[in-house]
Amino acid sequence: MSSRRVYNFSAGPAVLPEEVLLEAAGEMLNYHGSGMSVMEMSHRSSDFQNIIDEAEQDLRDLLGIPTNYKVLFLQGGASQQFAMIPMNIMKNRVADYIVTGNWAKKAAEEAAIFGKVNIIASSKDKNYSYIPDLSDLPVSEDADYVYICQNNTIYGTTIKELPNTKGKDLVADVSSMFLSEPMDVTKYGIVYGGVQKNIGPAGVVISIIRDDLISDEVLPGTPTMLRFKTHADNGSMYNTPPCYGIYICGKVFKWLKSIGGLDEMKERNIRKAAILYDYLDRSRLFKGTVRKEDRSLMNVPFVTGSKDLDAKFISEASEAGFKNLKGHRTVGGMRASIYNAMPADGITALVEFMDHFEKEKL
Amino acid sequence: MSSRRVYNFSAGPAVLPEEVLLEAAGEMLNYHGSGMSVMEMSHRSSDFQNIIDEAEQDLRDLLGIPTNYKVLFLQGGASQQFAMIPMNIMKNRVADYIVTGNWAKKAAEEAAIFGKVNIIASSKDKNYSYIPDLSDLPVSEDADYVYICQNNTIYGTTIKELPNTKGKDLVADVSSMFLSEPMDVTKYGIVYGGVQKNIGPAGVVISIIRDDLISDEVLPGTPTMLRFKTHADNGSMYNTPPCYGIYICGKVFKWLKSIGGLDEMKERNIRKAAILYDYLDRSRLFKGTVRKEDRSLMNVPFVTGSKDLDAKFISEASEAGFKNLKGHRTVGGMRASIYNAMPADGITALVEFMDHFEKEKL
Repeated sequence: MSSRRVYNFSAGPAVLPEEVLLEAAGEMLNYHGSGMSVMEMSHRSSDFQNIIDEAEQDLRDLLGIPTNYKVLFLQGGASQQFAMIPMNIMKNRVADYIVTGNWAKKAAEEAAIFGKVNIIASSKDKNYSYIPDLSDLPVSEDADYVYICQNNTIYGTTIKELPNTKGKDLVADVSSMFLSEPMDVTKYGIVYGGVQKNIGPAGVVISIIRDDLISDEVLPGTPTMLRFKTHADNGSMYNTPPCYGIYICGKVFKWLKSIGGLDEMKERNIRKAAILYDYLDRSRLFKGTVRKEDRSLMNVPFVTGSKDLDAKFISEASEAGFKNLKGHRTVGGMRASIYNAMPADGITALVEFMDHFEKEKL
Repeated sequence: MSSRRVYNFSAGPAVLPEEVLLEAAGEMLNYHGSGMSVMEMSHRSSDFQNIIDEAEQDLRDLLGIPTNYKVLFLQGGASQQFAMIPMNIMKNRVADYIVTGNWAKKAAEEAAIFGKVNIIASSKDKNYSYIPDLSDLPVSEDADYVYICQNNTIYGTTIKELPNTKGKDLVADVSSMFLSEPMDVTKYGIVYGGVQKNIGPAGVVISIIRDDLISDEVLPGTPTMLRFKTHADNGSMYNTPPCYGIYICGKVFKWLKSIGGLDEMKERNIRKAAILYDYLDRSRLFKGTVRKEDRSLMNVPFVTGSKDLDAKFISEASEAGFKNLKGHRTVGGMRASIYNAMPADGITALVEFMDHFEKEKL
């Protein structure tokens, strides 16, 4: 970590690889001899076409995306996808939602603008601190799709066994675990995420969609910009895309390839998360809030049991350079988001700080 | 101009002030001692709240925006506004559109998804090379609004006298002239633009909306993210906004203030455009394509009259460091976009190059 950089545990926007930021700074006034910044570059230029083409190809390489899946670079965050998905694929006006947290709940509420939404599983009874059994759910016969939020940023849970959708297409928001490990895209009809947690700057959403789900048959009143086909037919450049964000995402893809791809990234993420979870399991002060088997590799919420101590810890940690550890208001306590770009050193240092705090307070 | 930077006449994304890019590069790894990049910063942090608050205030100062107008930072480009505007304010399902170019035409087509669109004026008869008389149009009695695209990027025309809307609210897309000169916001119900032409990187749209036009009464089926009220009620942070783009816009606002604001910017833009238009008026080879009184200060299309010579000129100019001079395919020839950040030196150098080319070829 270069001097004066902090350890940033923000849930998103979040830490990016320092190599990527250094490269971007170096290219800010003159990208690869073009004499201009990527921010200043026509999206119709060959330089930018190369940037977006390489970004797509590198993402395809990383995830092994088959040719019958389109990769779209979109805008509006996951929140806009909450509407775009039903508007494009809720042909029967029925969909099943699995609600394992706030974002899945919001997605379900938005879909209800467009059709009948069945909540076929939920973990609301225990404040979303676990993942329900998804092996034999009452999937609706006329459901157009089954929806999940696979990693629950606020609560720190991950759906590790995908639901048995009984033949229906699975749609997944993977924002906060995107590219943290390999993923079999063919198990999903649509898999998408905002990039601002694990991949790049806010303002880009990547959606990977099986091509038979992209058609002109959308719900009446669907705006042109909210049709998957508009973007699929135009290589994500129906209108000016968020060029600079896509450029940064492309650099992160190359960084992931350079370290050995998603298998290696997963190994590292498992090792990194274990540093923190192992400590939480032996601490007499700090406790994880999530059922062990459902723990996320990316977002780790924990509490002391005392609101005053939580607040004191967050404040002292911040002064020591461990930033953005405050938990979401619906869970309280602390949350360490330890995305791909968080170095193991940062987690080790945090655990040392926690251990020191624990010994001081107990 | 720093060595190896080119003169970039792109219509958008387009040239940005070099001071802004230098500052952004310098802050890339550590914004104001925060220890992180603005790309890595939680949108809920006080650092980012200050960035967006200052950006809004500086924009309000520059344009003199009254308190009864909201300023929204949105995503999806002008193309998404083409739907968002009718979805939010087409209460009677009727609107009047003035079609002075391709973007106004697209806006009208999109609005027709939602209601009856009357084209009350058009300059299509002469390939949009002029602005029709807008002083006494057949404004529809039940129209919810009258729509214009005030500066026509492709064709190089500007609506200098706003239409007489006979009491109806005026909605204007000002993307390619945004902040190029002062503007009386109170003459508009909504004035908006994508920032990627004159203000910042692609992926941010700024919309300035009179507050009585923001309500819960939207067309049925309007997604949450496409409601003005969603964004107005949440200070443009209902979900994660395009933080880095807003940060760059904020720097451009400060740059505009530092040079003396929009009065000074207009003076400079008039002087800059005159360098090119005066040359076009006396050239025996190059001719402007627009009726003189409707000429844009921002986008200057011109032709030689020979497709071969046009192509040769574009190619030789590019080699000499004058980039992106190819005109839009619907007009042909050349187009020099000379936005705020294009220095007068760039235009003088272009004219010298054109003059040299003319003497060589004639």
